[in-house]
Parts: sequence; C-alpha cells; structure tokens
Amino acid sequence: MTGDTCREPVLLTPGPLTTSARVKAAMQRDWGSRDPDFVRLSAAVLDRLRALAGGGADHVCVPLQGSGTFAVEAMLGSLVVPSERVLILANGAYGRRMADICRRIGRDFDIYEVDETVTHDPEELRRRLAGDPGLSVVAAVHCETTSGLLNPLEDIATVTRAAGRRLLVDSMSGFGALPLDMTELGLSAVAASSNKCLQGVPGLGFVIARLDELDARAGAAPSLVLDLRDQARALLGDGQWRFTPPTHVVAALAEALAELDDEGGPAVRLARYRQNRDTLVDGMRRLGFRPALEPGLQAPVIVSFVEPEADWYRFEPFYDALTRRGFAIYAGKMRALGTFRVGTIGAIDTGVVERFLVAVEAVVTEMKQKLIR
Amino acid sequence: MTGDTCREPVLLTPGPLTTSARVKAAMQRDWGSRDPDFVRLSAAVLDRLRALAGGGADHVCVPLQGSGTFAVEAMLGSLVVPSERVLILANGAYGRRMADICRRIGRDFDIYEVDETVTHDPEELRRRLAGDPGLSVVAAVHCETTSGLLNPLEDIATVTRAAGRRLLVDSMSGFGALPLDMTELGLSAVAASSNKCLQGVPGLGFVIARLDELDARAGAAPSLVLDLRDQARALLGDGQWRFTPPTHVVAALAEALAELDDEGGPAVRLARYRQNRDTLVDGMRRLGFRPALEPGLQAPVIVSFVEPEADWYRFEPFYDALTRRGFAIYAGKMRALGTFRVGTIGAIDTGVVERFLVAVEAVVTEMKQKLIR
Repeated sequence: MTGDTCREPVLLTPGPLTTSARVKAAMQRDWGSRDPDFVRLSAAVLDRLRALAGGGADHVCVPLQGSGTFAVEAMLGSLVVPSERVLILANGAYGRRMADICRRIGRDFDIYEVDETVTHDPEELRRRLAGDPGLSVVAAVHCETTSGLLNPLEDIATVTRAAGRRLLVDSMSGFGALPLDMTELGLSAVAASSNKCLQGVPGLGFVIARLDELDARAGAAPSLVLDLRDQARALLGDGQWRFTPPTHVVAALAEALAELDDEGGPAVRLARYRQNRDTLVDGMRRLGFRPALEPGLQAPVIVSFVEPEADWYRFEPFYDALTRRGFAIYAGKMRALGTFRVGTIGAIDTGVVERFLVAVEAVVTEMKQKLIR
Repeated sequence: MTGDTCREPVLLTPGPLTTSARVKAAMQRDWGSRDPDFVRLSAAVLDRLRALAGGGADHVCVPLQGSGTFAVEAMLGSLVVPSERVLILANGAYGRRMADICRRIGRDFDIYEVDETVTHDPEELRRRLAGDPGLSVVAAVHCETTSGLLNPLEDIATVTRAAGRRLLVDSMSGFGALPLDMTELGLSAVAASSNKCLQGVPGLGFVIARLDELDARAGAAPSLVLDLRDQARALLGDGQWRFTPPTHVVAALAEALAELDDEGGPAVRLARYRQNRDTLVDGMRRLGFRPALEPGLQAPVIVSFVEPEADWYRFEPFYDALTRRGFAIYAGKMRALGTFRVGTIGAIDTGVVERFLVAVEAVVTEMKQKLIR
C-alpha cells in the first residue's frame, strides 16, 4: 500500500471510501431484482437502517437509487409541499445545495446561513421560527463535509420541536457512526447513503421518514422516480422496488451492515474514527499543518487542513505525490479558505493513518527539496 | 447450476441479468470518485457509449446515477420544456410510464396508444403530427420489455424527421445489441442503462443527446439531480460527476464494454441473443407454450409466453420450481393477457437455454403429477 507504483490507493475521502474485502466480495453474485431472495435481502437492509436511525413503527426506510443528493432532493420533494416553506440552515456547500434543490423543484424556502467555521445560534433559530409562522419545516445538515464540521443536531432539534415545526436532516456523512435517534429527537426524516460511515459502496441513498407524513403528501413529489411515498408504499406492499434496484450495491450494504454489527455497532465504530481523527490531527500539526476548524467543532469524519502559504506547496503535486505513495486525499471545498481534506472513515485504522503521516512527511520534504534545486 | 439446492440461479430476466465473472471481478477495487484514474475510466466509458449509439461530435453521453427510468425522466425533463408538447407512442408499460413521468414533472403530452401486441401505424403518426403543429417532440420505446416487442424505430424516425419534429428514444432493453445509429436516424436523444444488453450491473442509466439541444434548454429541468445539461457541462468541464458516481458499477460497465468488444461487438452479440431466442421459442413451443407475440414482432431480448389455462399451472409454484433448478424467470406484465417472461440476454448461450428447457419439461411433468395425486 505504500509503494511508489501502488495502483489502488487507500481512500482518505468522505466516501466513496476504502471498503473491506468482505464488502466487495458480496458483489460477486448476480441477484434477480424481483426474486424472493433479493426481496428478503432488501427488507432486512431497510429494517436495519431504520433501527440504526432510532426509527420505530411510525417510520419507514425508503431506499433510493443514486447518490446521497438524490435522497436529499427526494426528501425535500416528498416531504415539503408547495404551500409550505422551509428554513434551511446552511454553513457549507451541502446546506446551500438544499437551497439549490428547493429552487429547482419549486419549494419555497428561507436560508439562515452562517460562516463555514461556526454553527447556528439556537436562540436566533428560535427567533426566526417565532417571527415567521409560515416556516413550517426546518432542514439541517448533520456533519458538513465541506469543512468537516459537526452541527449541534440536538440543539437544533430541541428548538425546532419546541416551535412545533418539522425537522428534515441530511446526515449523509455521519450516519452509522454519529449518534442519532430520530424518535428521541422527534425528527421527521433523515437522509443518508450507503458509502459513508456505513462503509458500503456508492450507488444507494435512503431516507428514514415518518410514514404518516409521507402519506399526507401523496402525489406531491414533482418527480416520479424521486417520489419517496410511492417507493415506500410499493415496498410495504410486496417488497418490490418500483424501478430496478442496484442489486450488487444493496448486497454490499447488507454485508457492510453485518460488518458494523461485528465491529460492535456505531459506538465502537465512532471510537475508531475518533482515534483516526486524533492521530491524524496530532500528526499533521506536528508536520506544520493547521486544521481549519476549532477542535470542538471537528467531526471524526473528515478534516479540512489549511493549505500552507509557502512556495513549495501546490495542491496537485501534493495530491499526486501522496497517490504515488498509496493515499488518495480530497480537495478542499471551503469558500473563504484554501484547504485540502483528509477523511478518517472507512475500513481504516490508526495504523493506516500513521503510514499516511509518514507519507506526508516524505512528500513535504521532497517538495521542499524540489524547490531548492 | 441445475442442482435442486442451487443458491444462485441463472437470471433469465431483462436485467439485472447474469453477468460474467470478469464483469463482477471489476468491482473488487475501490475508486476515488475525484481521482484522475476514475475520471479517465469514466470518460472512456462515456466515449464508448456515445460511439455505440452512433453519436458524433454533436452528441454527448450523460451518465446518471440510478436505474433506467431515472434516465428516461431526466431525458424528458431536460429535453422538453413546459412550452413544448410531446407525442408519446405507447404499446406497453414503458410507453405509458413516459406519460406518468410527463404528468409528474409538468410536461404537456399527447399519447398515441395501441394494443400491446401490435406496433404503431406510421401513416397515423404522420397524420397526427401534421394535424397538430404544437406536438414538437415524439417519444418512443425501442424494445417494449412489457411484451418483448420490437418497435419499428426506423419507420418512426423517418416519419418524425420528415415532419420536422425531434425524437427521444427509450432504448433501455436493446442498447448494445439492437442496431441503432442516432446520427443516421436523426435522433435527439437515446436513454439506456448499464444492466441490459451491455451486460453490466445495475445502478447506472445514461442518455446520449445532442449537446446543442441540452444547452438550449439550460435551467429548464425541474430537478437538480436529474438535470442532464448540468451533468453534461460538469463532465465536459473537468471530467467530474456533479454527485458521487456509483464507482464500482462504472468500473463493471467499463469491463462489460471491453467484453462486448472481445465478443465481436453488437452484431455478434445480437446473433447470440437471436440464437438464444430461437432455441427458447422452438423448445417452449415443443413443450406446449405459446409466445404472446407474432414472430415478426419478437425482439431477441425477452419473450412473453401465454400462461397455460390448465389446472396444473400457477405462476408461483412454476417460478419456485424453476428457481430450485437454477433458473430465475420473470413475471408477466401484459395488460390483457396472462403471461410469464423469459429473458434471452446476458452472459448466457444456447447451452444454458437448452438446460432451461430440460428444467421446464421436468417442472411441467412434476406439476401435472402433483395435480393427479
């Protein structure tokens, strides 16, 4: 994994990420999408995902072919009707993307946006909801992959619930590791995907939602394929997806969920990710790199590091040299700050992070030497 | 494959279907979705798909996460604007589904529907277009998987072109095997997916379209994730997908396309599928089963057989008994006729079909005997 000619790098990214051999092995079989065997596999996956979200008998897990953003668009289109208005909490690209979606699908919204390095003020949220009875729904991002920031979901849920509004959550990059209990928090819906903390492969999003809220908005979704209520009702009927499911991706997710159980569940996985993050941040600090966020806001999912303002540094050669050493990092996405990102999730442990730090040190030395010559 | 306890049946379905070991093996690697290696892989796949469609410099292949229906909805939403009206040609569920999509996404349409066992009259199509100048677009299904019928795409294209209208084609179940040259036929767009005649795994649709027609409708798609123009422009820019691609599915498709070339291309594959179909239909006739369609209308993709009106026959036990013998068939979907379907595509040859016929004969005997006891 650390040789110069390594063809398959370790993915230190927010997903698609490095999956285990057993997850990939689960894709070595073809499933008939209408076959009872697949129907059972699919039902077991959806039950497990609902339980992971803290969903109960009132909730349903609705799978959706595509990426996580497909699930977020489906959530907004299926759970908000044109007569409602959403308050979107944004402190990064994924919050702003919810606004882009609402604009496209014709859903009315306000946006409460704060800087990418801070969280929203619960008191200000309370004031905005109190001052505008038309805002019937709040939409929030759990972990903002733009920066790596962990938003205070409990505070947001408490205020939203107290104001009698519904809360839709994009928990894409945290689901399966970050604590989340939608029943306790009173969430209306949570959107996530197969290829982040669940450590499956990409190609599947899902939304866990209250079935009564989906039913109450039947026919309102401005899309056939992204209609979560129709998808839910089809699956509750005969267990069949409305349109061809990505069978191999679903099989990989079933194996990834078994792997999560074998690891000890979300709490144990979170502890591993925290160790990865702490090892990464400490090591990178020693090498002179500075995280973009205050430690208290940093989720154990992905870390944004400020790009060095130095002659020797440019992202592309830095990225390429790390890839040659067997590690794929991620470009930055923050608006006001040049950053690069390093993921701490996937089938990796602190041993991998330690090897990554050795590679970073070698690459920095190499790039500085090149400058001198 | 023929034992009673076989766990993985041969899929005699219209896709997801039986793929080769080499296609499944291509999913044993994790790809960074933003990594240059994946960008190159993805670009090569899209170029090959465009060439397979007979697309030229004016065309672009736009991939779309999800199933084939996602691609059809994206095609209608991105290439028809609210001021236009589509004439949908329907003789099965997939034609009618295009009408469902238009209803949902707010696109005006007329439907020219004929029985599921016949094709549209080109002269009547000509009359309808001549009589209604508001019909600016025609949408047609190439192979109707509902019945297995091959629609006369050349005739439809000739009439549409002569009337100065645009033609959008759902070529889902035929793409990669049935002859199709969009430049020669003057098609505006063709939608298809990874897991039919291309023999990849499910999870990816795509639309090959004229870039100028996409650009002319920029911003009109009523969805962010299903906006083909934005997806095309992003890929033409830096080769990146806008949202996480199903990397393993794309890698499997790259391998499947190489396999198609190794087989000798679409014409050789089509010849194999025709042999499969002829072997199947002849053998099933010998066993007393009757195809639902006239031979001249039967595509070499999937065959609908009329369900026997006999005491011994019921679909579920017939299906289950075949599955125990290693073959998964497909339920029927025709409106006026009880049918079951048997696919003739995928990594299968006449040897597999012969073994299937042996299994059918054994199952029929078994079911008749059970009735006697």
